[in-house]
Amino acid sequence: MEVIFLGTSGSMPTQRRGASAIAIKRGRELIFFDCGEGTQRRMVEARIGFRRRTRMFISHLHGDHVLGLPGLLQTMNLLQRERPLYVYGPQGLTEFIEAFSSVLGGPSFPLHVHEILSEGKIYEGPEYDVTAVRADHDDPTWCFILEEHPRPGRFHPEVAQAQRVPEGRLWHRLQHGEDVRLDNGTVVRSEDVVEPSRRGLKVAYSGDTRPSKAFTDVSECADLMIHEATFDDSLADKAEENAHSTSREAAEVAKAAGVKMLVLTHISSRYPDPGVLLEEARSIFPETMIAEDLMSLKLEP
Amino acid sequence: MEVIFLGTSGSMPTQRRGASAIAIKRGRELIFFDCGEGTQRRMVEARIGFRRRTRMFISHLHGDHVLGLPGLLQTMNLLQRERPLYVYGPQGLTEFIEAFSSVLGGPSFPLHVHEILSEGKIYEGPEYDVTAVRADHDDPTWCFILEEHPRPGRFHPEVAQAQRVPEGRLWHRLQHGEDVRLDNGTVVRSEDVVEPSRRGLKVAYSGDTRPSKAFTDVSECADLMIHEATFDDSLADKAEENAHSTSREAAEVAKAAGVKMLVLTHISSRYPDPGVLLEEARSIFPETMIAEDLMSLKLEP
Repeated sequence: MEVIFLGTSGSMPTQRRGASAIAIKRGRELIFFDCGEGTQRRMVEARIGFRRRTRMFISHLHGDHVLGLPGLLQTMNLLQRERPLYVYGPQGLTEFIEAFSSVLGGPSFPLHVHEILSEGKIYEGPEYDVTAVRADHDDPTWCFILEEHPRPGRFHPEVAQAQRVPEGRLWHRLQHGEDVRLDNGTVVRSEDVVEPSRRGLKVAYSGDTRPSKAFTDVSECADLMIHEATFDDSLADKAEENAHSTSREAAEVAKAAGVKMLVLTHISSRYPDPGVLLEEARSIFPETMIAEDLMSLKLEP
Repeated sequence: MEVIFLGTSGSMPTQRRGASAIAIKRGRELIFFDCGEGTQRRMVEARIGFRRRTRMFISHLHGDHVLGLPGLLQTMNLLQRERPLYVYGPQGLTEFIEAFSSVLGGPSFPLHVHEILSEGKIYEGPEYDVTAVRADHDDPTWCFILEEHPRPGRFHPEVAQAQRVPEGRLWHRLQHGEDVRLDNGTVVRSEDVVEPSRRGLKVAYSGDTRPSKAFTDVSECADLMIHEATFDDSLADKAEENAHSTSREAAEVAKAAGVKMLVLTHISSRYPDPGVLLEEARSIFPETMIAEDLMSLKLEP
C-alpha cells in the first residue's frame, strides 16, 4: 500500500501546498480521501492514472476538500474512462455533482454516489472495509478508517504431501486452521503446513475536525493516522473557534489511539516552515511527520 | 501592463501546465482571461493578491476555462475580500455560479455577473474597453479584445508661460489640440506645448476557437495576440473536428491581423516539448512565443 499526499494545505493554497487530497495505491486500485482543487494536476505529477479502479471518500463539502472533483470527472470523460467511479461522502454530495454537471456536462462513465447517513461501515469489499465516524467540524463531516482484511497465511502443499495428506477436503481443512487425522492415525497440525495469517493494514483519516473521541476509539492501533493540524498550540483558541485541531491535539489523539505513525496535514498557510508543528507534536508523539505535497509513504503489514 | 500566463494547458493538465488562465496586471487592477482549475494556486505562486480591483472575462463554460472560479471565490471569502468582483462570460455563467454556491456557499462580497448576449463592447471603462466577438468553438464561446484608451500627450506649462499664453481657457484649448492666437497676434501651436498623444495597448485573446475572421478583424494591429494552438499542422483534421486551431493557423491569423507579437497557449498534453508548434508558427509569423505557466510579459506602448 502506498499513500501519496496530493494536497496538504489548510483552507487555501500556498506556494508549496495545494488543497486537500490523499491517494492510496492498493494493488491496481486507487482510494482517495478528499479531492480538493488541483487533485487532477497532482495526479499527473505523481503519475497516477485516470482509468484505474477508484473509490473516493469525501470528508465534507467545503471547497478545499471537494472542488477537484468536477475537473477530475471532466478529464476522465476526455480520456474515455469506462470503469465506474464510486464516490462516498456527506449528504449534499449528489446535489453538488448534479449542480456542476447540469452546466458543464456530466460523466460519460458510470458514477455511483453514496451519501453517508450514519456512522459505521460504508464499504465492505473483498479485501478491505471503510468505516465512517462523525468528525467534530461543520456538520456533516466524516472521518474515515480503512482496514484491510487479514490475509490467510501461505499454505505449503509440499509439506502436506510429505506428510501424506491426500489432496482435497483435508487440504481445505488444514488451510482453514483445522488439524486433521489421517487414516493411519497420524495427526497433522494446520500450523505445520500453513503460515500464520497476516494481519491487514489500517489507515485512519481525520478530515477536518476537533480532537474526537469517536475517531480516537475507531483508530485504535492503526498503522497510520493522518490527522489535520491546522494550527500550533499558541492558536488553540482559533482552532477551537474554527473546529480545527492543533498539532499538539493531533499528537494526543495519535498517542491515545496507540497508532504506529502520525502524519499531520491541512497545514495553515501561516506556516511556510511547519517546524513548530512538528516539534510540538513530536514532544507528545515522536513518530510524527508533516505531510508535503507529493510525499509518498509505503506501508507494509 | 504585465501579462502573466497562469495556466496554459489544452483541456487537461500536464506536469508543467495547468488549466487556462491569464492575469493582466494593469496599475492596481487585475484583468483575467479565463479561470481554469488551479488559478488561485498559480496566483499565490505569482504573488498576485486576492483583494485587488478585478475584472474576469470567461471565454466559455468548459471545465478547463472556468473551474478555478469556485475555489477562487471561496479563498476571497476566507480573506474577507470586500471589493466587488466583476465577471463577464457566456450565457449560463450565472447558473454555474449559483449551482456551486447553493452547495458550498456564495461569496460574501459583491459579485457582479454579466452574461454576454451579443458581440460588441462589454466593458467601457475610464482607461480601457473590452470587446467580445464570437469564437468558432462550442457555442457560446467568446474572444476578447482589451484596448486602452489613448493617453493625452504631456502638456508643458513652462513652454506656454514662456510664450506668454495666459493660464485658463487658452491653455485648455492648447491641451486639446487647438492652436491659439494671442492678443498680440502671435499664434501658438498646440504641438509646441503638448507632446503627441500616446496610443494605448491592445491585447487580443482568442479563447478556444477555429481560426476566425471576426477575431482577425477586431485584433488588427494588436500589441499582443494570445491565440490557442492546441495541435500542430499534422493534426489539422483533429483541430477542425474539435473546433480548435493548429499552430500554423494561429500564426496565419496573427499575420493577417498585423499584430506585433503572438503567444500560443492551450497546448495539448501531447507536446511535452512544444518546439514543433513554435517552429511551425515562426515559419509564418516570426514574432511568436509559446506560453509557459507563470511566464510574464511586460508590454509598453
